[in-house]
Amino acid sequence: MKENMMKFCSACGEKVNWVMPQGDNRNRYVCVSCGVIHYQNPNVVTGCIPEWQGDILLCRRSIEPRKGLWTLPAGFMENSETNREGAAREAKEEANAEMRDLKLFSMFSIPHVNQIYTIYRGELHQGQASVGEETLEVALVSEDDIPWQALAFPMVVESLKLYFDDRRKGKFETHYGEIVKQDDGELEVTMI
Amino acid sequence: MKENMMKFCSACGEKVNWVMPQGDNRNRYVCVSCGVIHYQNPNVVTGCIPEWQGDILLCRRSIEPRKGLWTLPAGFMENSETNREGAAREAKEEANAEMRDLKLFSMFSIPHVNQIYTIYRGELHQGQASVGEETLEVALVSEDDIPWQALAFPMVVESLKLYFDDRRKGKFETHYGEIVKQDDGELEVTMI
Repeated sequence: MKENMMKFCSACGEKVNWVMPQGDNRNRYVCVSCGVIHYQNPNVVTGCIPEWQGDILLCRRSIEPRKGLWTLPAGFMENSETNREGAAREAKEEANAEMRDLKLFSMFSIPHVNQIYTIYRGELHQGQASVGEETLEVALVSEDDIPWQALAFPMVVESLKLYFDDRRKGKFETHYGEIVKQDDGELEVTMI
Repeated sequence: MKENMMKFCSACGEKVNWVMPQGDNRNRYVCVSCGVIHYQNPNVVTGCIPEWQGDILLCRRSIEPRKGLWTLPAGFMENSETNREGAAREAKEEANAEMRDLKLFSMFSIPHVNQIYTIYRGELHQGQASVGEETLEVALVSEDDIPWQALAFPMVVESLKLYFDDRRKGKFETHYGEIVKQDDGELEVTMI
């Protein structure tokens, strides 16, 4: 598994080695001089499904990867905020959208990129949104108009499928799934 | 908010400044020489509630913080594993416990420590466990015997309360909560 490349110790500036510390069970970057162990862990991406009178807000990406494709507002969770606050912040930044009543809806673990996605659902306040950062275009779309072939990421496809399924059942639940890269490069989604 | 202290660039070994990059909305560590931006983000702690014939497995901590108090097996999620695999691995490491049928049960966002906790529930295979890493003692305890005053962390208290509430209702759900430090230093738990 590829880690983020680290060549120098961020505490003292000397070189690091990629070795297994005593009492550990995997390699870490360890400073040759001050001995600090630099742990690397998965990142959390947080976002939401903005709802307004039965429609869903989608954003068309203005940046790579998947530039030009449609996504839900989402991005890396920042320090000092809650996971839910991060989802609201991303909707604000990417679509000038104010979110109300966010509830955790889906979580995906994606080990080949060392990421967890958390997706909330909530009301898009007054149905108002406009083009924000990293966004070419925003649109409120009905289930029939979701551009399934032009969605940017598997977690967007899966979250929207689960969302419409739950809506038809008249009961929203919180879902957990794993998106795992197979030997042939294909991504396999398993809901658990 | 306190970030992890960084003094030197992990890519080139030169000094970093704590400044706001162009187009960003918060300070980051940026290398004065190679310009790399070093993002810092919350970490994920993952664990589980091991169940066996109505009892719950608890572990007494052998390390600080909260040495000597009781907890659920949990620890930092590692790269290359799913969130659920991390929960199973921690149960194995801390209590030599094999977990079956893990389902996501609760998630807590704890912004003052930049952490997210994910807690699964599942069967403790054959009710077998023993002292592992970071553990002084393991015990299978009934609801009546939970040592509520000697639990190590708020997320353990809250997860067990939610667990027994759901069990009484005969239906387990997936819960999201926020544990926020107040001005007086007290932690406030809000389920959302």
